[in-house]
Amino acid sequence: MARYPTPAFAELIDRLNKLPGIGRVSAERLAYHIMYIPEKESTDLAKAIVFAKRRIHLCPKCCNYTESELCNVCANPKRDHTTICVVEEPKDVLALEKTNGYSGEYHVLHGAISPINGIGPENLKIKELLDHVKSSPIKEVILATNTTIEGETTSVYISKLLKPLNVKVTRIAYGLPAGGNLEYADEVTISRALNGRSIM
Amino acid sequence: MARYPTPAFAELIDRLNKLPGIGRVSAERLAYHIMYIPEKESTDLAKAIVFAKRRIHLCPKCCNYTESELCNVCANPKRDHTTICVVEEPKDVLALEKTNGYSGEYHVLHGAISPINGIGPENLKIKELLDHVKSSPIKEVILATNTTIEGETTSVYISKLLKPLNVKVTRIAYGLPAGGNLEYADEVTISRALNGRSIM
Repeated sequence: MARYPTPAFAELIDRLNKLPGIGRVSAERLAYHIMYIPEKESTDLAKAIVFAKRRIHLCPKCCNYTESELCNVCANPKRDHTTICVVEEPKDVLALEKTNGYSGEYHVLHGAISPINGIGPENLKIKELLDHVKSSPIKEVILATNTTIEGETTSVYISKLLKPLNVKVTRIAYGLPAGGNLEYADEVTISRALNGRSIM
Repeated sequence: MARYPTPAFAELIDRLNKLPGIGRVSAERLAYHIMYIPEKESTDLAKAIVFAKRRIHLCPKCCNYTESELCNVCANPKRDHTTICVVEEPKDVLALEKTNGYSGEYHVLHGAISPINGIGPENLKIKELLDHVKSSPIKEVILATNTTIEGETTSVYISKLLKPLNVKVTRIAYGLPAGGNLEYADEVTISRALNGRSIM
C-alpha cells in the first residue's frame, strides 16, 4: 500500500478493486484516469452512483427497479397485465425487453434458492409474487429463472405455490441456443431439445 | 436508453461507460452491482472518487501526486536528492518504485511531446523540471520516458535543455526485456541490445 502516492489514492484503488471484474491493475488504471479527468466529470460519476442508489427503489408490484411509484412496465396500460414473467434479477428483465418479444408484466425475485449460499425462499420476493398474482387478473405465470440448478429449484418451488391459485404456470423452453452446434452441446441440452421437439 | 429501468440507472451506466476499458456491458454489470451492494459501500466508493480528486494535488517539486505539501519521495530524507528520474506519468513512478532499485527523486512530466495529439513541450511539466534541477544539488537526470516515438522525442528535447545546466543527463537502457526471446524481438530492439552490450 505504501507504494501508492497518497492514502486517498490507495483508498480509491481499494474501492474500485471491490467492483466485480475490476482487478488491482484495472483499479489502478481507473484511479489514474479519475485523477486525470476534469473534476466535474469525476464529481458527476460520484453523483451518479449516489443518486442511482438513493432514487431507485423496488416497484411495489413487480420488485423491479424504479424511480416512479410503479415501474415503467407495471404502469404502462399498453402492456398485457394478465401475464407475469418471473425472473431472477433485474438484468434479466433488460435481456427479455431487448428481444421486443414479450408484452406482459415481470416479477423480479432478486435471486434464486441456493442452500449452499444460504439463500432460502424467504430471502426472495416470492411472497410479493403471490400478492402480485392475487391482486391482479393474472392468467399465466411464465417461469423464466435460469436453467441452473438454483433456477430450476426456484421454478419448481414457485410452481407448487402458484398452482392452488388457479393460474396457468409455464416454464420457458429448453433446447439448443440460436447458432448452437449439436456437436458441442451437452447431453442434457440435446435430450431436452429432443423432448421439446415441435412439428414443422 | 428507454430500455433501462430508470433514468438515474441509465445515467449511472453512461458515466461508468466513460471510464477506460469499461464497455456498455461492463458498465451495465457494474451498475447492477452498485444497485445490489449496501448503500454504505456505494457511498464510500463515491466519496473515494471525490476525496481523491479534492485532496490530491501535484508535488510542487516533482509534480507527482501528493496529499501533503511535498510528496513522499521528495520529503523523505533517506532518498538520494542528487538524482532525478524523469517519467511521463505518475503510474511510471509506481512501476519504478515496485522494482525497489531506485532511491533518487522523480519528476513527472504528465505526458510526452506528441504534435499529432496537439501536445507540445508547453503542455508538459518541463519548466518545473528545469526549476527542480536549478533549485536542488542535482548531479544526474535519468530520462525514463517511454521508448515510443513520443517518449524519445521528449527525452531528446529535455536533454538539450538540461545540458547547459551542467548536469549529467542519461537515458535508461534499451535492450531485450527479461524473459525476452531473440526470435520474437523486433530488429530495432535487437540492434539496440547489440549496441548496448556489456562485458560479462
